[in-house]
Amino acid sequence: MSATHQLRCTNCAGRIAGEAVSADFRCPQCQGLYEVVYPWSEGGRSEGGRSEGAAASPDVRLPNPSALRWLWQERRTSTMAVDQSGVWRFRDLLPIVANMDKVVTLREGNTPLYELPKCAASVGIDWLLAKHQGMNPTGSFKDTGMTAALSVAAERGFEWVACASTGNTSAAMAAYAARAGLRSLVFIPDGKIAWGKLSQSMDYGAMTVQLKTDFDGCVRLLNELVRRFPIYLLNSVNPYRLEGQKTPAMEILEQLEWQVPEHIVVPGGNLANSSALGKGFQELKHIGMIPRTPKISVIQAEGANPLYRWYNDANREMKPVTAETRATAIRIGNPASWQKAARIIEQMDGWCEQASEQEIALAKAQIGAEGVGCEPASAVTLAGLKKLVAQGRITREDRVVLILTGHTLKDSAYTIDYHRGALLTAEEMAGATPAERALHASMAKPPMVLEANSDVVLRALEPYMAGMRQSVSGMPQAQPV
Amino acid sequence: MSATHQLRCTNCAGRIAGEAVSADFRCPQCQGLYEVVYPWSEGGRSEGGRSEGAAASPDVRLPNPSALRWLWQERRTSTMAVDQSGVWRFRDLLPIVANMDKVVTLREGNTPLYELPKCAASVGIDWLLAKHQGMNPTGSFKDTGMTAALSVAAERGFEWVACASTGNTSAAMAAYAARAGLRSLVFIPDGKIAWGKLSQSMDYGAMTVQLKTDFDGCVRLLNELVRRFPIYLLNSVNPYRLEGQKTPAMEILEQLEWQVPEHIVVPGGNLANSSALGKGFQELKHIGMIPRTPKISVIQAEGANPLYRWYNDANREMKPVTAETRATAIRIGNPASWQKAARIIEQMDGWCEQASEQEIALAKAQIGAEGVGCEPASAVTLAGLKKLVAQGRITREDRVVLILTGHTLKDSAYTIDYHRGALLTAEEMAGATPAERALHASMAKPPMVLEANSDVVLRALEPYMAGMRQSVSGMPQAQPV
Repeated sequence: MSATHQLRCTNCAGRIAGEAVSADFRCPQCQGLYEVVYPWSEGGRSEGGRSEGAAASPDVRLPNPSALRWLWQERRTSTMAVDQSGVWRFRDLLPIVANMDKVVTLREGNTPLYELPKCAASVGIDWLLAKHQGMNPTGSFKDTGMTAALSVAAERGFEWVACASTGNTSAAMAAYAARAGLRSLVFIPDGKIAWGKLSQSMDYGAMTVQLKTDFDGCVRLLNELVRRFPIYLLNSVNPYRLEGQKTPAMEILEQLEWQVPEHIVVPGGNLANSSALGKGFQELKHIGMIPRTPKISVIQAEGANPLYRWYNDANREMKPVTAETRATAIRIGNPASWQKAARIIEQMDGWCEQASEQEIALAKAQIGAEGVGCEPASAVTLAGLKKLVAQGRITREDRVVLILTGHTLKDSAYTIDYHRGALLTAEEMAGATPAERALHASMAKPPMVLEANSDVVLRALEPYMAGMRQSVSGMPQAQPV
Repeated sequence: MSATHQLRCTNCAGRIAGEAVSADFRCPQCQGLYEVVYPWSEGGRSEGGRSEGAAASPDVRLPNPSALRWLWQERRTSTMAVDQSGVWRFRDLLPIVANMDKVVTLREGNTPLYELPKCAASVGIDWLLAKHQGMNPTGSFKDTGMTAALSVAAERGFEWVACASTGNTSAAMAAYAARAGLRSLVFIPDGKIAWGKLSQSMDYGAMTVQLKTDFDGCVRLLNELVRRFPIYLLNSVNPYRLEGQKTPAMEILEQLEWQVPEHIVVPGGNLANSSALGKGFQELKHIGMIPRTPKISVIQAEGANPLYRWYNDANREMKPVTAETRATAIRIGNPASWQKAARIIEQMDGWCEQASEQEIALAKAQIGAEGVGCEPASAVTLAGLKKLVAQGRITREDRVVLILTGHTLKDSAYTIDYHRGALLTAEEMAGATPAERALHASMAKPPMVLEANSDVVLRALEPYMAGMRQSVSGMPQAQPV
């Protein structure tokens, strides 16, 4: 058994050594998904301070919180690649790679934590932050997971990696595979290809195979392939990805000088990210670095809301849906990791909400107007937050962090269509409140076409310039038009 | 006169206080462009060590190199926004804002310095790095300049900012203006609009005005407007942008532990970036932080090569060209800052080269295959480096840093067209050498369409998998297809 980590089935709790996992990353007993556990991360949780369960075991030394804080801060001054990575800087809590020289990094992580004062005011809370995971090298949060999983693949000697994905996952996989000198394979269903979403994996040298089947068919074939050939599977079932994706929890706390926010709000698609972040916060509490964990809530798009439905189903039955939303990164009707997410929401006292297309578009424009661009899927967090505040679940004093998962450049067409008034249908807008309609009107910035004459231009801008001061230091006095 | 900085005309050397500059940022005497100078940055340059000219003045204290190094390193552990910025962390060398609370930042800078081992081998040098400025918040190097210029605009009380640009400049301006709570105006010529390029400025809430004129007409109207109304001009004539754009010089040296590389290679469009970086290196040498400066070379696209032509013109006459290249970020036929760039290339012993469309596309694919995505304009650096090495101007032992200016997501269509074989014309490919043709063939990754059957897929992949090991630790033995 591995000295540093094991894999535990999240369904039957069976354990295996990391190296013993089957190629499809499913538990041979019950087909459940695995999670990575460490000697120090085991045992019961205590209400405050360090875990008594783990501390009781004489063989296990919990990492020392103050030593770790100091170490993680010091590494920020280092020029070593593994120290400059916002994932591997926290490697003490993800000892999944024996040899740090094998780590595959693009200097991921270290993403900004932005204040969103205008959004906070609009929502009615005092303090709102956005952790922008779209500022990762390939433009999405997937990079933090891929650096971890690709490092494991490289250390175990694989030469090929593969996933089924048309979007952020394949982009991240292809980049890290190229970095590691490995070959990568992307499976996508033949037919309606969104080429824009594939541009990155092609750029990073992945082989793209369009299969004459649907998405589930791609996943099935991929599973067959990895059982027959030494190709490393990088779909979201790979538990090492989640070890990388837990590190934004450390970054957020570091950026807040270890003050724990009350609430984290995460977009919900395949639902692995919420559980990864939750795992990060729980482990930090377990070793005594924070006295409590934040709440975690998951927001889905109305058109891709299987977890939301499950919560509101009297029989608590998971029924896959036919996903339809413009927030493509969370357009998933049958999420692989829904049980993990449901467990984390429950353990961390959060909620699951949903947002309509109109609400998502408005939220994205509001975040954009703070100078922070994100892809539509990221904006569900703000849309969902509005509901949680309206429901009284989140109060004015609660300190909230939204997780933005992708960069605005991931979906330029959405932004253009919104501002040109070509995105939302009349049917979608029918559900908007008068306040929302007014906000849409103030947010949308359709381009003007004007004669190249300064009087014409000034006259057109006049309504917007009404409040402008007539004199500015160092500038000539403004002349009336 | 300002205590901390003045503006010096780069043409007639006339000086003014920063606050006294005219709205169009042109010298009233000679219409020249300004650059920012500081008390400590003046005086003659010495061959090694600290400048004698400056040190001779009893009133001027040169910043202390070792104190600065320590301070800049310590700030990396800070949670303050201005310390987390890769521009304002070096604020001691750009004291252009009196009140640090007024600084407008999106946590720009801190961009990765990637090794490109495969590109180095292909070019025939031992050591090649890429400083990826496309990893800035809006996806291009313009952010480092805009954080500086918007901070000045905010401190001076402006409420509106404006530029004429359809691309990276307007995206960066709009984001920082939104962050500062200022309104922003983007002027573009009516007609052939590349909407994708405008998506970001719309997202960040800029007002977009299409003028019935060409690009030069937009610039003329903008100049008229800023003279008549208190709108702050953010075109590349604004010298404060260059103060931000000089900071990658500090970052590169910090990342290399203050070992000075032999050569920096920069894409050449409007030609302000090369002079900004050069200014950064020269100031570091001037205060004694580095014993020598690297060489700086500028690479242009063949279809937008006015500076290259100027170098190769016996009369040294600058003739604007009609720019035509797919590398849109450097598609500039009449660069505003060509004299600054020519001066820097001369002072820093560099060269100006050009690259064809075919050479640019190949270079971009080669950089991509290292897991590092960039926009086409960035790839001219590698294409130009090949020529400088072939000419013997750069030798195998020279340590070279390429400046990548934009993210691959800035132009997805280019990448897709290249890999699908739809980018380059037969005429463009006619100029390729046999070696280049072979490289293109190995780089391009056109998607395959296959039946959803694992035997079919394995057979299709077989040629690529020939060298794959038959057994990988922890995985079942591969079965022959």
